[in-house]
Amino acid sequence: MHKTSTHLADGRDLIYFDRRDIAREVRPDLRDLGRRPGASEPRFDLRTGDWVVVADHRQDRSFQPTANDCPLCPTRPDRPTEVPAADYEVVVFENRFPALSTPSGLAGTERLSSPVVPPEPLWSASGGGRCEVICFSSQHDASFADLKPDQARLVLDAWADRTDDLSRRDGVAQVYCFENRGAEIGVTQPHPHGQIYAYPYLTPRTSHMLERARAYRSATGANLFDDLVAAEAAAERVVARNDDWIAFVPFAARWPYEVHVYPSRRRRDLTDLDDGERDAFVTLYLDLLARFDRLFDAPAPYISAWHQAPRLEPGAAEFALHLELFTNRRSDTKLKVMAGTEAGMDSFSNDISPEKAADRLREIGG
Amino acid sequence: MHKTSTHLADGRDLIYFDRRDIAREVRPDLRDLGRRPGASEPRFDLRTGDWVVVADHRQDRSFQPTANDCPLCPTRPDRPTEVPAADYEVVVFENRFPALSTPSGLAGTERLSSPVVPPEPLWSASGGGRCEVICFSSQHDASFADLKPDQARLVLDAWADRTDDLSRRDGVAQVYCFENRGAEIGVTQPHPHGQIYAYPYLTPRTSHMLERARAYRSATGANLFDDLVAAEAAAERVVARNDDWIAFVPFAARWPYEVHVYPSRRRRDLTDLDDGERDAFVTLYLDLLARFDRLFDAPAPYISAWHQAPRLEPGAAEFALHLELFTNRRSDTKLKVMAGTEAGMDSFSNDISPEKAADRLREIGG
Repeated sequence: MHKTSTHLADGRDLIYFDRRDIAREVRPDLRDLGRRPGASEPRFDLRTGDWVVVADHRQDRSFQPTANDCPLCPTRPDRPTEVPAADYEVVVFENRFPALSTPSGLAGTERLSSPVVPPEPLWSASGGGRCEVICFSSQHDASFADLKPDQARLVLDAWADRTDDLSRRDGVAQVYCFENRGAEIGVTQPHPHGQIYAYPYLTPRTSHMLERARAYRSATGANLFDDLVAAEAAAERVVARNDDWIAFVPFAARWPYEVHVYPSRRRRDLTDLDDGERDAFVTLYLDLLARFDRLFDAPAPYISAWHQAPRLEPGAAEFALHLELFTNRRSDTKLKVMAGTEAGMDSFSNDISPEKAADRLREIGG
Repeated sequence: MHKTSTHLADGRDLIYFDRRDIAREVRPDLRDLGRRPGASEPRFDLRTGDWVVVADHRQDRSFQPTANDCPLCPTRPDRPTEVPAADYEVVVFENRFPALSTPSGLAGTERLSSPVVPPEPLWSASGGGRCEVICFSSQHDASFADLKPDQARLVLDAWADRTDDLSRRDGVAQVYCFENRGAEIGVTQPHPHGQIYAYPYLTPRTSHMLERARAYRSATGANLFDDLVAAEAAAERVVARNDDWIAFVPFAARWPYEVHVYPSRRRRDLTDLDDGERDAFVTLYLDLLARFDRLFDAPAPYISAWHQAPRLEPGAAEFALHLELFTNRRSDTKLKVMAGTEAGMDSFSNDISPEKAADRLREIGG
């Protein structure tokens, strides 16, 4: 993998990832982008201990552009985009309308904690964190499932690179690589891409998992994820596996079709994966995405979310890297909506039994 | 308030609530409903400590019926419904397609805990809890905002009654009264109605709030909610208030337009409210709902969620009754979707500043 770094017209970082060591020509971004948007403001919710980010500059971001004005396609002479190049393999750049932003840059910033008693009841920070966009391909109409294995491998290497780079920076508590796919899941840009969030705080979900993994170790001497994956591997919901990875519908699935993917040997984050594990992941993941494409009349909308250990947290070694892939589609005509019980109480009910979901995902294998 | 209890053809409880002491004629439900659906199955997620309910009989529930076959309208001679009466004021009955169900009834059942080390890694219960439907009016096309104050007061009294009744039953950890309004929020029945969930477990949101309130008391000697509401009352986001209630957009709002409503004197649950507080709530709440109807071109979809103390939990006295009212609509044309950061990490970003949201909600007052 070869990296080439440059900057966009408003100063944002942009990095080309190429499979081979090439001398990529770096062209300048000639657009007049004006000033970068102001800082987002993380605010502390005293009741829950969760940080909520207020980012009101995002209300004006672009919405479902046509291919003709797609900002993620390569630049053409008559149409500049976010990527000032005639073509690219994989490219990562800072989001122009970021949910998380630190206008002066991350250097010297501090991570945000969740104290029982904050300095004041209504407590906030000025900025924090960083959001990046990752384009999986220069082809506007492709999807991740369409990528050739070596292209998907390049994406995985780029995710690992961003995880390593961002994890080492000041003010970053955890790195989250994810893809939202499909208009039904709120995607505003159809070009195949994902996002990378460097949160300045520990997210609620990671925090709760880590807390339980630590308590589980204290109580049993064992690792929670090891025990869980061993139980799932012996159960009836395994969808796919190879020597290095296992994919199953979890026993307590929250979404109509949900698959968790774990490496066979527990890893903390993407940077821990060796060459063989990376290639084996690509094979398994492209197969899973093809199954998701066959679930319904049209390709299923999905969220694909990498859960990684927050390196600097106490007990981070108890965490296990894993991917959660799920769709909010229940059937050809119905979506699962997060309504009163989910959005109000964070309590999920699932109308499709995980065993039936696993059966269906196995049936529609290639 | 006057209650009249009866049963539907398949044995489900149905209760009429009338403003005055009337002798309501109880008609039998003559439908052939067949058997009630099987038990839902709460499953324990070892990683998070959350219970997820698998209820696969719900996949077949009815979807957006027309007024002609609305199951929540009063029965007509040629068209039986869930309510075997020519008319009603407010009626509550057990949901025919419940997310939470205990086929043999709640008596003798146990509440579900969230141990660090469960009996087995993949641990579930057979059934648990109960779901009720509450019809706010017999008028199919009404909405809560259209109710006369005495009708809205009857709904509030019915919520309090259900809270008291269900809280006392075996196997109930907390009672949750809520309304989902609008197709955009997943509502499958347009008839004005809400839902009442008697959870067999503590929901994640309640659990986290209660845990923090207990820790806050230990650390400061004060009540977390008292300190929070005092700070909000002195800040710039108050939308409406009277002697007994205050409504504000919270400092750390997660949704585009979100209002929290607290009684001026801290209460644990709806049953604690006296006559004056109940009447004062109705006045304020109908005003808030009218504002939500004026936010956009069409009435805003919303979730309205009563957070109540789980009576039997240690430290329940630290909890404060409050209502959360919020919409997932950001503008006339845009919805907020729970995508990668919200659905994957439980971490929210909000594109509308809470101060601007409060300004707007004040502007559109009656």
